[in-house]
Amino acid sequence: MYFASDNAGPVHPKILQALVDANDGYAMPYGDDDLMTRVRDQIRETFEAPEAVVYLVATGTAANVLSLATLTQPWQTVFCTPQAHINEDECNGPEFYMGGAKLTLVEAPDAKMTPDALCARIEGEETRGVHGPQRGPVSITNVTERGTVYSISEIKALSDIAKIFDLPVHLDGARFANALAAANASPAEMTWKAGVDVLSFGGTKNGCMGVEAVVLFDPKHAWEFELRRKRGAHLFSKHRFLSAQMAAYLEGGLWLDLASRANAANARLCDGLRGTGGARFLHAPEANMSFAGWTRAGHQRLHDAGAKYHIWDGQLEGDNPQEELTARMVCDWSATNENIDRFVELVHG
Amino acid sequence: MYFASDNAGPVHPKILQALVDANDGYAMPYGDDDLMTRVRDQIRETFEAPEAVVYLVATGTAANVLSLATLTQPWQTVFCTPQAHINEDECNGPEFYMGGAKLTLVEAPDAKMTPDALCARIEGEETRGVHGPQRGPVSITNVTERGTVYSISEIKALSDIAKIFDLPVHLDGARFANALAAANASPAEMTWKAGVDVLSFGGTKNGCMGVEAVVLFDPKHAWEFELRRKRGAHLFSKHRFLSAQMAAYLEGGLWLDLASRANAANARLCDGLRGTGGARFLHAPEANMSFAGWTRAGHQRLHDAGAKYHIWDGQLEGDNPQEELTARMVCDWSATNENIDRFVELVHG
Amino acid sequence: MYFASDNAGPVHPKILQALVDANDGYAMPYGDDDLMTRVRDQIRETFEAPEAVVYLVATGTAANVLSLATLTQPWQTVFCTPQAHINEDECNGPEFYMGGAKLTLVEAPDAKMTPDALCARIEGEETRGVHGPQRGPVSITNVTERGTVYSISEIKALSDIAKIFDLPVHLDGARFANALAAANASPAEMTWKAGVDVLSFGGTKNGCMGVEAVVLFDPKHAWEFELRRKRGAHLFSKHRFLSAQMAAYLEGGLWLDLASRANAANARLCDGLRGTGGARFLHAPEANMSFAGWTRAGHQRLHDAGAKYHIWDGQLEGDNPQEELTARMVCDWSATNENIDRFVELVHG
Amino acid sequence: MYFASDNAGPVHPKILQALVDANDGYAMPYGDDDLMTRVRDQIRETFEAPEAVVYLVATGTAANVLSLATLTQPWQTVFCTPQAHINEDECNGPEFYMGGAKLTLVEAPDAKMTPDALCARIEGEETRGVHGPQRGPVSITNVTERGTVYSISEIKALSDIAKIFDLPVHLDGARFANALAAANASPAEMTWKAGVDVLSFGGTKNGCMGVEAVVLFDPKHAWEFELRRKRGAHLFSKHRFLSAQMAAYLEGGLWLDLASRANAANARLCDGLRGTGGARFLHAPEANMSFAGWTRAGHQRLHDAGAKYHIWDGQLEGDNPQEELTARMVCDWSATNENIDRFVELVHG
Repeated sequence: MYFASDNAGPVHPKILQALVDANDGYAMPYGDDDLMTRVRDQIRETFEAPEAVVYLVATGTAANVLSLATLTQPWQTVFCTPQAHINEDECNGPEFYMGGAKLTLVEAPDAKMTPDALCARIEGEETRGVHGPQRGPVSITNVTERGTVYSISEIKALSDIAKIFDLPVHLDGARFANALAAANASPAEMTWKAGVDVLSFGGTKNGCMGVEAVVLFDPKHAWEFELRRKRGAHLFSKHRFLSAQMAAYLEGGLWLDLASRANAANARLCDGLRGTGGARFLHAPEANMSFAGWTRAGHQRLHDAGAKYHIWDGQLEGDNPQEELTARMVCDWSATNENIDRFVELVHG
Repeated sequence: MYFASDNAGPVHPKILQALVDANDGYAMPYGDDDLMTRVRDQIRETFEAPEAVVYLVATGTAANVLSLATLTQPWQTVFCTPQAHINEDECNGPEFYMGGAKLTLVEAPDAKMTPDALCARIEGEETRGVHGPQRGPVSITNVTERGTVYSISEIKALSDIAKIFDLPVHLDGARFANALAAANASPAEMTWKAGVDVLSFGGTKNGCMGVEAVVLFDPKHAWEFELRRKRGAHLFSKHRFLSAQMAAYLEGGLWLDLASRANAANARLCDGLRGTGGARFLHAPEANMSFAGWTRAGHQRLHDAGAKYHIWDGQLEGDNPQEELTARMVCDWSATNENIDRFVELVHG
Repeated sequence: MYFASDNAGPVHPKILQALVDANDGYAMPYGDDDLMTRVRDQIRETFEAPEAVVYLVATGTAANVLSLATLTQPWQTVFCTPQAHINEDECNGPEFYMGGAKLTLVEAPDAKMTPDALCARIEGEETRGVHGPQRGPVSITNVTERGTVYSISEIKALSDIAKIFDLPVHLDGARFANALAAANASPAEMTWKAGVDVLSFGGTKNGCMGVEAVVLFDPKHAWEFELRRKRGAHLFSKHRFLSAQMAAYLEGGLWLDLASRANAANARLCDGLRGTGGARFLHAPEANMSFAGWTRAGHQRLHDAGAKYHIWDGQLEGDNPQEELTARMVCDWSATNENIDRFVELVHG
Repeated sequence: MYFASDNAGPVHPKILQALVDANDGYAMPYGDDDLMTRVRDQIRETFEAPEAVVYLVATGTAANVLSLATLTQPWQTVFCTPQAHINEDECNGPEFYMGGAKLTLVEAPDAKMTPDALCARIEGEETRGVHGPQRGPVSITNVTERGTVYSISEIKALSDIAKIFDLPVHLDGARFANALAAANASPAEMTWKAGVDVLSFGGTKNGCMGVEAVVLFDPKHAWEFELRRKRGAHLFSKHRFLSAQMAAYLEGGLWLDLASRANAANARLCDGLRGTGGARFLHAPEANMSFAGWTRAGHQRLHDAGAKYHIWDGQLEGDNPQEELTARMVCDWSATNENIDRFVELVHG
């Protein structure tokens, strides 16, 4: 019963097999491997973007910080939500890679920016000439850090605002596959057709070992990105083992299958929690992550049974067994119905 | 009728004379001039801080960014108000000098942090181990950017919170003299006795040509500060001309006289504006800066008479002469009663 | 016949198997996996350093830049050879991670610093107070970038110089196993017993997929290192797959077996090249890398047969078939006698 | 008898008077003062460069680091001499402002790069794709740090090399006036006509209090420069006092008069030293700085008489009164014949 995160689950057997298969003698290092050619083709086809350039790195934070650094001047500010991974969970990595640029936080109920709030924040910058930070890119996260999902039209509404001010748009898609599965849209529709310029395309949380693609829909910053990746120490010598993961991940739509599985697992979990005696939800659970509250007694039962997940707003230890504590739960592709149902049962007591 | 800022007024004659006097043959460069020895003594005495180390730079932003860089690790975050100069008016200079550290904004009605809000923000960081930014210094601005003034006990309450978390405290005192004059306290009381570790001590806005002192009450970072100043290109070769300004500024309490004069000018201005048909104030005008609203017609009269100040929330041009627009006004030491009274008259029409 | 680099060869089957074995359900992310506990124990035992702290990253450049950033202040300079990877092959990554510190190049015949040259360079810095860069760590590479190896006493002689000036010592051990196999010494003897403070301990070039350990013999910078790793985007969520590689690499001395194999392969290659009609060596080939010159005609034969290696000082294309061109050849653990002998035969023609 | 540096002498009376004159009521801050308009016109006329943009800062290091940061990407390397101020005397300021770019040192007898050495160094970079630093600007210093002067044709020869590789050229002209006076050329001839893109144009060492102009002959980076200056904390609020210095400095050719005076003083000094029993010169003294050697006894006599200059290669204290020690001497505009002759007399004994 492991629902703590999708970053700690197993690698899908097909992806593991791809690593084994790739271990065949020598291969050109640093991204010049044949598998990378295949990955490039797969991504261009998947995204209907024949001009896009594609680079692989091993962590989601690397994908984000290198993307943002490529889009941002050090005297600019990035518009994002307070809950964004780039704000809360990257230990100032974006600021480091951007050479001291900053983040301007846009209020975001359920971790989703509204076009009005975004517009107001953008208008609030560049009001004092050389003195204040200059406007930089808009960074959107989908699936959000609260498990909600932007629809295609919501992304488009935000990027339309960005375009008014001639600002580029970055999409943090650490859970892009889950968002896509939830939004029932095509990869192109959620990205360049909706105004996204650069995508952090996650693999690690969805069945890979450690690989993320950065997709630059406009190739003009390609060489700069390569230099930034190298300088950031993120260029792999035995790069074929990144390529092999990504190739297997994309092959035959495995990435969407796995995301759909994770989303379905989360839906089953939430349905169960909503049942008799059930849980209160903090946000609409639209993909593979949910925030729900129930009694401390329920948490205690789960804890005793070895279930893993985060208590979001309190401590297991406490006097009042009826007090409600919120859990954050994430399902990955490997969550089983058996574990989900047992988890739900324990909540209900 | 110049009330646009205290950064554009004349240098006080005594300070100008000090520059002329200092121009006597050769002097050791880079801060080894005899006048700097005098400044060091003056500041230690003024602040009752015999161990303090003192450095001079030419701009307030330099004083702030070097102070913060010395107190902050790149993976930390500085707690300050949204209105702080370091957030709004230094074009990411703090982030640049701190190597990518960030600012966490603490809600601040009238540009003053409350201890509760500060505490909540500090508690909100370092909740996710290595992933989030680590807690860094608290930076307080006095006089605030909205013309309000922290009392000694208010500063102490904030630094008490900082000390609970073992965080250093920086005071941005670009208008320190004005704050002190308003708070009716001693320099020591508003700084180290109230828990302040490092002070940006302004001279430029209060009758100097361009000089600010950084006072490190704990000398342990002295050498690091010197290296940071040099590396930031802020070490003057003909340093005696910084020293000369600061020495004259401190001599005989000139700095407090000038600040008192500026505060009194602002009080006269505000009293006038409060009169019949008068103005609405956005914040309590406690030092030498005020924010007051009156009709567009009043603004037009001032504009036609050549008065200089900032309209804070709108445009002079507009259809409705009765619409209220807020002005930001700043008095420096050289403001005359004649100009103030004429300004007030024009507002009232 | 692949002798272009040891960064492009296959992963050893035991290490690949370890990845497969590690893929068993869930594991704590971000270095809290059980395998990492084992790695920590293995390294402490291997290095006879029970206090050492150990961190894993995926690239050699990451190991170097994070190590140096932890040891260096931005106003300091690192002493290294012109040929060092940190100078020539990391695209300013060290300068980026160190916040703008610089490298002072120490003359190094055969890519090995002499104590005298190092001492002279250290003495040459800090001669102008605050104006010049301050002295920072000494960074030694073993195996060097020219295939030569520092003996234990040579490392000690350099670190003795460093200690005179109270400077820390970093060892870039991307090929540490090969150096150790060549020097016939214990891990402790080549590191902390010889004055090394921080080690970049390579795995990738010697049979791993992508893993390097950073070993801090003094634990005082441990937490800072963790923050720097995270901020640099080098902290893996599915960290167990780094741990698994390193655990298998260390298990039963596999790492030294593989390095010995690579060194022996190189020795066989060099012996062959030295034979009748043979090659001229640029540097003494002491580990698994060699630089030797022979005729263009010989290079052409190798090229036609599909052999891969770098021509170091010229172009294959040219008029004079008797002109000598130097080759850089690197053997990894998987080099076969058959390929080596065939390569040699083709050189001799 | 002060020959230690031209950075410690007095401000010329006309420049001091200009500061007094500028202190007339209010002036627009941050470079919008009327005097700056005049400075801009003066520089464009002086340099025959109507499109050039001009910015003022207070230190020579600020002029250099901001210029270089504007011309250099963080993954590039700047070509300069080992003796360059940017390498030896700015405490890693260039690396800080350039975001971690590095310097590649070009061998330079008498502190002057030769075209061949420059070309070889440029060719030596960018030989390893994404792995090594990329080629960045060439930075030339005139007057050099050893008192030698590049002729117009020598500067042109270097910038011709730079242009072959499409690299921009920066000229560190902390002593530009002295170089021009020595080379007997026009400002345009020594800068844009000779291929210089950005000039650090010094005032401080030549009779100003603290002002340097940055001249960008191509205006395309103007706004970026302004943001970098602000972010670096080098934008003055009371900017008119920078403008006033520079305007007076340029007015009626004062800057060239002062430089000629300093150069003539140095020539007199060197002629005197060359006399009977005289001194050995390390470099040809072509402007206002000289390096000459004489006996310790001579140094002792100077020391006893209170003369100030740097002993370059040894210590005054020593057993052998006949041992030769080299002095570095710099004349500024205010050096008197009387002091020079007395200095020479004391050397000769």
